[in-house]
Amino acid sequence: MLAALINGENVTNAAKAIHIEDRGLSYGDGLFETMLVSQGQVRLLDQHLSRLKLGCERLRILCPEEQVRADIAKLALVKASAVLKIIVTRGAGGRGYRSAGLDPTRIAILYDAPAQEAAANAIKVRWCQTRLGRNPQLAGLKHLNRIEQVLAQNEWHDASIAEGLMLDTEDELVCATASNLFAVIDGVLVTPDLRYSGIHGVMRAHVIVKAQQGGIAVEERPLRPQEFLRASEVFLTNAVRGIRSVVQLEEQNWRVGPMTTTLLGLV
Amino acid sequence: MLAALINGENVTNAAKAIHIEDRGLSYGDGLFETMLVSQGQVRLLDQHLSRLKLGCERLRILCPEEQVRADIAKLALVKASAVLKIIVTRGAGGRGYRSAGLDPTRIAILYDAPAQEAAANAIKVRWCQTRLGRNPQLAGLKHLNRIEQVLAQNEWHDASIAEGLMLDTEDELVCATASNLFAVIDGVLVTPDLRYSGIHGVMRAHVIVKAQQGGIAVEERPLRPQEFLRASEVFLTNAVRGIRSVVQLEEQNWRVGPMTTTLLGLV
Repeated sequence: MLAALINGENVTNAAKAIHIEDRGLSYGDGLFETMLVSQGQVRLLDQHLSRLKLGCERLRILCPEEQVRADIAKLALVKASAVLKIIVTRGAGGRGYRSAGLDPTRIAILYDAPAQEAAANAIKVRWCQTRLGRNPQLAGLKHLNRIEQVLAQNEWHDASIAEGLMLDTEDELVCATASNLFAVIDGVLVTPDLRYSGIHGVMRAHVIVKAQQGGIAVEERPLRPQEFLRASEVFLTNAVRGIRSVVQLEEQNWRVGPMTTTLLGLV
Repeated sequence: MLAALINGENVTNAAKAIHIEDRGLSYGDGLFETMLVSQGQVRLLDQHLSRLKLGCERLRILCPEEQVRADIAKLALVKASAVLKIIVTRGAGGRGYRSAGLDPTRIAILYDAPAQEAAANAIKVRWCQTRLGRNPQLAGLKHLNRIEQVLAQNEWHDASIAEGLMLDTEDELVCATASNLFAVIDGVLVTPDLRYSGIHGVMRAHVIVKAQQGGIAVEERPLRPQEFLRASEVFLTNAVRGIRSVVQLEEQNWRVGPMTTTLLGLV
């Protein structure tokens, strides 16, 4: 942790920072964003703020958009290359699920940027046993209820494996633990539609737009493992690491294909 | 809030108490218990601690059982009639879903006991629109991923309605927002089996044991609204409020029936 703000104020003691009754802690009642700061600029800032705003609307949290923007601007000055995490919770107070009239809590934390993978972001992945539950009311949101992802990432400890692919409880392929998934199938760029679970990634949306502008056909639709395994190219996306080409999934191997290479040049 | 401990230490400033990177806040990665303190005694203490321990095992958090027991003993001395909430999280540290070697965070908070409802705990309830997602891996646990319950309780603001009944995404009746559900159907005490969602309530288990000891047939099984509406008696349970008889659900009315009355005397 390089620096942090809570409700705009510098955090001097990270260990004593958050209200004991913050509803982000009590119930995971809030949302988060994880952004890349590169050459002093926050990548895809407006898209991150739009998603945060939409998530707040869906959870009926009053989005402190301008203050979050100010927090981001302040922390982005600290280091030219970094990861900036924002959390907005429903606020602090009271026992019980019902909330009323709380002021949202704003948290902003700056971290060092992650080390880059070797070999042009070509990564190995695995299957996770942990499944994603389905709930259309919460699907797509980057909310703080993430026990499924925690359990999934704790399934493996082999540092050579960068990510784990996740199915939902009805055997649809949804995403990786902290990335969205794309597969080239019969020349079409396919990505799961996230109607029941998963997160609408900012980089996922960016890749879809860039692909379509580049004349690549994109389909957001259900995807099952059997069809997925026929893919000629597979890659993962997230806001911090961009596009990462999947070259190995347990017994299956892929190369960094032409569509992935094209998209790496476009985003 | 009457008093609070974090990792056994008195909290002097509730607003600055929790680590900014606590994983309970970041991901709802933890568990909680809410207990009734009555006449200076914690009701069903061993059952609460057993559930906490089981939840920790399922989430692979090292359960600080003895320390939690000490925290409870300390706070239970403060007031003879109160509500005692325990939270155990995976601990504080780092960005990303993966965790390793963290010390769990223990939080204990003492609240005033709630006011009793009038008329022998006879309550009105409603249907909630918010559905519960299904995930057998998390079903039954009292974990901190509770956005569904928060959204459900925020659906109504009529103080005369005490609870809301919740269906899962496949139209099975599971529970109320903060209570388990029992229905007397053809003379049998039926309660949803919670195989896909919901929380294994401590009072639910206590009522099942007491009913069976009293010669009442109990079935834990799937329950759909159509069958439920045929019930001759309906009641809710939770650890703080015990048994509450449901006397009205929108257009439908029930009386406080004989089996409910018997059980009120047994638990």
